[in-house]
Amino acid sequence: MRGSRNSYELYYWPQIQGRGEFVRLALEDAGAAYRDVAREPGGMRALERVLQAQADASALPFAPPVLRSGKLLIAQTALILHYLGPRLGLAPATDAGRLAVLQHQLTLADLAVEAHDTHHPIGVQLYYEDQKPESRRRAEGFLAQRMPKFLGYFERVLKAQRSGHYLLGRSCTYADLSLFQCVEGLRYAFPNGLKQAQRKLPRVMDLAARVAERPRLAAYLQSPRRIAFNQHGLFRRYPELDAAPAKKR
Amino acid sequence: MRGSRNSYELYYWPQIQGRGEFVRLALEDAGAAYRDVAREPGGMRALERVLQAQADASALPFAPPVLRSGKLLIAQTALILHYLGPRLGLAPATDAGRLAVLQHQLTLADLAVEAHDTHHPIGVQLYYEDQKPESRRRAEGFLAQRMPKFLGYFERVLKAQRSGHYLLGRSCTYADLSLFQCVEGLRYAFPNGLKQAQRKLPRVMDLAARVAERPRLAAYLQSPRRIAFNQHGLFRRYPELDAAPAKKR
Repeated sequence: MRGSRNSYELYYWPQIQGRGEFVRLALEDAGAAYRDVAREPGGMRALERVLQAQADASALPFAPPVLRSGKLLIAQTALILHYLGPRLGLAPATDAGRLAVLQHQLTLADLAVEAHDTHHPIGVQLYYEDQKPESRRRAEGFLAQRMPKFLGYFERVLKAQRSGHYLLGRSCTYADLSLFQCVEGLRYAFPNGLKQAQRKLPRVMDLAARVAERPRLAAYLQSPRRIAFNQHGLFRRYPELDAAPAKKR
Repeated sequence: MRGSRNSYELYYWPQIQGRGEFVRLALEDAGAAYRDVAREPGGMRALERVLQAQADASALPFAPPVLRSGKLLIAQTALILHYLGPRLGLAPATDAGRLAVLQHQLTLADLAVEAHDTHHPIGVQLYYEDQKPESRRRAEGFLAQRMPKFLGYFERVLKAQRSGHYLLGRSCTYADLSLFQCVEGLRYAFPNGLKQAQRKLPRVMDLAARVAERPRLAAYLQSPRRIAFNQHGLFRRYPELDAAPAKKR
């Protein structure tokens, strides 16, 4: 299907996972036909054109990722997934279910912002090197309080879920893929911090492991299409921001 | 209609505008019947119960605001507005329009987070007094770069909008009310900073002024139901974080 005329077009920075990865995971898990436009030759110019699009003012994007689907241009990661979810078989069938899955996605987006801000507490317009002491303070509070609060919340959601193994029951949704991505990102950024937190998060860790084994997703994760985590994305590894390795405790 | 059996129930902190205010504005502008539950006698206990709700795991809220509508429990401000919009006559009729209005709301939510983080760059679990130097640095970048970027984006959206005076054309949507609220909040928090930025934002400032004059909204803003801005909400006034008063320049 790849490259068919009816494929989705994703516009996102070509060298990072970043927010675009939440969209890539959904498209890949569903085996959808899509173009990752900015990664094609000349793609960065196409991305710039989309960001400056004036044709349809209502859909003018503020920032990537942007999805083009036919004539529609959609920005904001959670909104793109809200649009794609039912089309990719990654959202519940009911209206209430579609609200619930988007609610989870928005909470995961909040977590992603806070994870990002551990290395940019003073401003995205500055380098990490210009805000290192502040980053250390913010990361400390993130690991001690915020990360456990967010992941503990999803642990409670999974615990209360009696009808299946996923956040919303028997079927995997885009929010499950996004929770996997957050866990992977946190494992990359804070290997010690996550290791210490995960003892209280058996269901979250199990969900992340099961998502990684979904056949199309497992193939994607092994492919060159999966950009490696690096020091330019949402989740970055600065050892000085991580917790100390666990002792006996 | 107030207090009718079919009214919406809003659960939010009773002493601040905060994120709940975006929901209050939509309900008030539409003249909808609703209860602001936590502001009623014993309401804080009702809010706590909702936050601990286990009955419907899929809708377990992470944080206020939470809206109850019949059997539905919905968290996340933007999602509550996505749900209410069509029901209150504050969203476009088309699917594409509903995506566009939610996209704008999500971008405004991003702005609100960054405005909040000017006084809490290191962590929400700490007092402002424990992060004052860091707040000063973050606020400086916010006023110099981030606020103009966000508001300039909405200026461009309004400029490209030929068919009417609102973000999405002739009809007022919940995103217009939210843009008004952001402008008011920024005016409260950064009176000098906004005054200097607004010269390049004629359409945004005009929109905010027109929203404030909508009859039901104007009545609400004058009523005791409108909580005053204060030092506990999203937008806080710390003069040391604001820009210096404008000189000739």
